[in-house]
Amino acid sequence: MSRIVAVDWGTSSLRGALLDSDGKALEERSFARGILTVPTGGFPETFEACFGDWMTPGTLCLISGMAGSKQGWREAPYCACPAGFDAIAAQLEWVEAGRIAIVPGLSIERSGVPDVMRGEETQIFGALQLLGLDNARLVLPGTHSKWVTVSDRKVTDFSTWMTGEFYALLRQHSLLARMMPEADPAHDAAAFDQGVAHALAGPGLLNTAFSTRTLSLFNRMAASALPSYLSGLVIGEELKSQTLPRGEPVVVMGAEALTARYEQALAQLGVPVQRVGAGATWRGLRAIADTLS
Amino acid sequence: MSRIVAVDWGTSSLRGALLDSDGKALEERSFARGILTVPTGGFPETFEACFGDWMTPGTLCLISGMAGSKQGWREAPYCACPAGFDAIAAQLEWVEAGRIAIVPGLSIERSGVPDVMRGEETQIFGALQLLGLDNARLVLPGTHSKWVTVSDRKVTDFSTWMTGEFYALLRQHSLLARMMPEADPAHDAAAFDQGVAHALAGPGLLNTAFSTRTLSLFNRMAASALPSYLSGLVIGEELKSQTLPRGEPVVVMGAEALTARYEQALAQLGVPVQRVGAGATWRGLRAIADTLS
Repeated sequence: MSRIVAVDWGTSSLRGALLDSDGKALEERSFARGILTVPTGGFPETFEACFGDWMTPGTLCLISGMAGSKQGWREAPYCACPAGFDAIAAQLEWVEAGRIAIVPGLSIERSGVPDVMRGEETQIFGALQLLGLDNARLVLPGTHSKWVTVSDRKVTDFSTWMTGEFYALLRQHSLLARMMPEADPAHDAAAFDQGVAHALAGPGLLNTAFSTRTLSLFNRMAASALPSYLSGLVIGEELKSQTLPRGEPVVVMGAEALTARYEQALAQLGVPVQRVGAGATWRGLRAIADTLS
Repeated sequence: MSRIVAVDWGTSSLRGALLDSDGKALEERSFARGILTVPTGGFPETFEACFGDWMTPGTLCLISGMAGSKQGWREAPYCACPAGFDAIAAQLEWVEAGRIAIVPGLSIERSGVPDVMRGEETQIFGALQLLGLDNARLVLPGTHSKWVTVSDRKVTDFSTWMTGEFYALLRQHSLLARMMPEADPAHDAAAFDQGVAHALAGPGLLNTAFSTRTLSLFNRMAASALPSYLSGLVIGEELKSQTLPRGEPVVVMGAEALTARYEQALAQLGVPVQRVGAGATWRGLRAIADTLS
């Protein structure tokens, strides 16, 4: 298939790329037009305003992310795991037949409780392509981190961890926040490592988080080191709960600063890392488009 | 010793009682004059305005709580555990010799990390008196819950759990808050139990908290049940990390509604409860005073 328009439409941002047949981005655009900014019924208009000029006759557009949620352009029902490229391509939600489709998210059920992702599935399939992997353990750190198991190019298991959000809540709204500088100081690698170590050895975040207060109270840690220490605590808590066979690499994908922290934390567990940066979403959308031709 | 004035001076509230020689409260008062409302140097004046008329010549006053912190009337250095009545009485911080003293808090060190309490030590010693116990496992639920081990009438171990604060952060400021009614609905015992069970079986709060979102998203739980479910998740997470020999009772002390929730959650673990309500602080201060005579 020739050129496609690839769109990543999230809660707070909108990014698009015009991709050639190899998945190379010929042009990229981003807008502060996350789905929360789009009025009811305003999606077609917003789309045309942002990407209409790329949509020459016969051009296909694939959209991943929260545009497929209840609050988005059109709800694209979750695809149940295990799920691979083919399952996702078969369940595309066409908002304009043959022209614009939304990629469904994934769902899974564990002990009677559902879990979901939207947008990450595309990054995951893109990463598999970029790394040439059929089997992998991946983590996508973020506000809600996803830990993912891929077997035979299918997502067979995943779980969500509210690590980034817990950090933000503790950093901004908790009693611990009062002990820290308002602006974020530079990353303190030693304090971060200390936080990871304390979380790995400790009985749980509800308890270990309090050490941020007492270390400060007893003048054992500078205020400027506390945010990095707290970041180590929450990331260490997340890692502690994963089954991570020592020596087998984990694929870490996402923003540079955050993936670097995960790499640093995983090193304490002796787990090597393969990092995947930007580009995985475009590669994933390209790969889904290719299954259609 | 005859009458004493017992004061519990916390961060946000100030309570006092005139106690007879048996520890009975002859009169009680409370004021919205927590230490955060008192200007620097304003403690003696605030004290006299609230309790001066009780301080007849020869009357002793003992104060517990955050009045002994750096931000309080006078810093009362922590008493290191193991510590009993006698250790605390020996380390009273006299702000007026022979007339007004502040009860020190307790500290403990575990794996190079300190933990602290201020005010709870007095409640604990009071509870031991009320229940006639020399050995006990206690929990004082709250913003920062304390789990305490008493051996031979000494506090030998304790730890802090930010359970109440995590609940408030998630309830008020997180993405989960958007799915819940703003005002607190009545306690939903079934949803609370479901939250406790999910926390006890789950891999950690960073993950299990997300189920509040997905259960709502998949219409498996009513919005009005979500706050109780979330409360069950955080309390269950706290309990999960405790070593609780099945069948041995735990002393639960604090506000009625909260201690009832802990009793309900502990029942899932087969742990019976002894509840201690208001009055433990007065009893504790009376007992400390009695060691002075």
